[in-house]
Amino acid sequence: MTSQHVYDGKSKRVYVKSSEEIVMEFKDEVTAGDGAYKALVPGKGVLCALVSAHLFRVLEDSGISTHFVEYDGLRSITAKKLKMVPVEVIVRNYSYGSLLKRMPLYGELDPLVPPLVEFHYKDDSLHDPLILPEDILRTNILTSRELSRIIELSILVNHVLSKHFRSAGLKLVDIKLEYGFNSSGELLLADEVSGDTFRVLDENGRHLDKEVFRKTKNTDLLLKAYQELATRLGLRWEVVLSTKIFG
Amino acid sequence: MTSQHVYDGKSKRVYVKSSEEIVMEFKDEVTAGDGAYKALVPGKGVLCALVSAHLFRVLEDSGISTHFVEYDGLRSITAKKLKMVPVEVIVRNYSYGSLLKRMPLYGELDPLVPPLVEFHYKDDSLHDPLILPEDILRTNILTSRELSRIIELSILVNHVLSKHFRSAGLKLVDIKLEYGFNSSGELLLADEVSGDTFRVLDENGRHLDKEVFRKTKNTDLLLKAYQELATRLGLRWEVVLSTKIFG
Repeated sequence: MTSQHVYDGKSKRVYVKSSEEIVMEFKDEVTAGDGAYKALVPGKGVLCALVSAHLFRVLEDSGISTHFVEYDGLRSITAKKLKMVPVEVIVRNYSYGSLLKRMPLYGELDPLVPPLVEFHYKDDSLHDPLILPEDILRTNILTSRELSRIIELSILVNHVLSKHFRSAGLKLVDIKLEYGFNSSGELLLADEVSGDTFRVLDENGRHLDKEVFRKTKNTDLLLKAYQELATRLGLRWEVVLSTKIFG
Repeated sequence: MTSQHVYDGKSKRVYVKSSEEIVMEFKDEVTAGDGAYKALVPGKGVLCALVSAHLFRVLEDSGISTHFVEYDGLRSITAKKLKMVPVEVIVRNYSYGSLLKRMPLYGELDPLVPPLVEFHYKDDSLHDPLILPEDILRTNILTSRELSRIIELSILVNHVLSKHFRSAGLKLVDIKLEYGFNSSGELLLADEVSGDTFRVLDENGRHLDKEVFRKTKNTDLLLKAYQELATRLGLRWEVVLSTKIFG
């Protein structure tokens, strides 16, 4: 690839394709514990790209504007170039993870009705701290109108994906969303939508997401969970993986 | 003291006086960095009790219900026995401290208008994490009406104290408040109101609060700051301290 490489993250490498577009290349690396654990999981990048492309299409089909342009095959997705909002939105349908750490009075996997929407400031060195909606407004990251739009979009995304997962027999526990503005100032869902950024449980309460690695540190189990997730979503990952897995 | 000792905290010891009352005994100890730094500051307990008693009176005179019953002299305050709410309310007039850590886009000491009200779950082992108002409601710590009342009271307390400090040439940066329910279910301001629980700056931007110890680890400087604070508030601490300082 000759294009300029602009960002090398924990799970993706981002290249500029044109003045309007980027390419996200999903790595095979997995990290947990704020980067304390790292491992290579050959096949993970392709599976996350495939699932992410699929779910972006599901969202677009439901009328939600995303940065997704096209799936380039294997581990790559072309997306619109955006000015990213430095905030992670987490939508929670069941209490889990960092929610239990900040507030142990929730029971594990208590249903949260309506879903709980929270914001974290994107800063690895600060460990993406929880922030208040007021913090976002007072530091001028977003206007009140933009913040309302992000909340509205996040609830909608969570609704569409929960329904989609439900039809596959899966339960969406929580999901992390990121947004950006396109050149017309429109807010679009960005980043990825994969087992790295949401938690889903099957009928037996087994995770088909990164939690498998967080809990076991076992890369084979993680790969199996990601394959199962793709299968459940009706994706023909065997074909893609057998083509050129380390492409 | 023959009464039962029910709580031994970082800066206070609490005894049950009767079925309705407790005694808070202010220690001379100071801690910082989540308990990493500890020191003895002879005189601190008396000064914090004196300032706290004075400010509770100021608040009561403004019509705010508190747990304060009377100043017992030296390091002791008699207060009403309450069922405590396990939440710390922080009201911020200027950005400082943990606010800058979670959101570095605030400038240090930026004015916050209107004041920012935030909640932390009282749990030392979790380092009193920031929580959302929704967390308080969803885990049934408070009803929506009680939470509104606490926000209302906190804004009022901050207003009254800001004004009182202003008349002494001091600027209230932020303050931590705690509440409890009395036997009739009424919400009362509890805990203490001292340099250990608020930050105030003099005309030259010098702290007259625990920040002095956090920054310098110097106990003499802290004692001087607490003496200066008491003097600024018109309190005759020399008389009290000379009576029986280690009482």
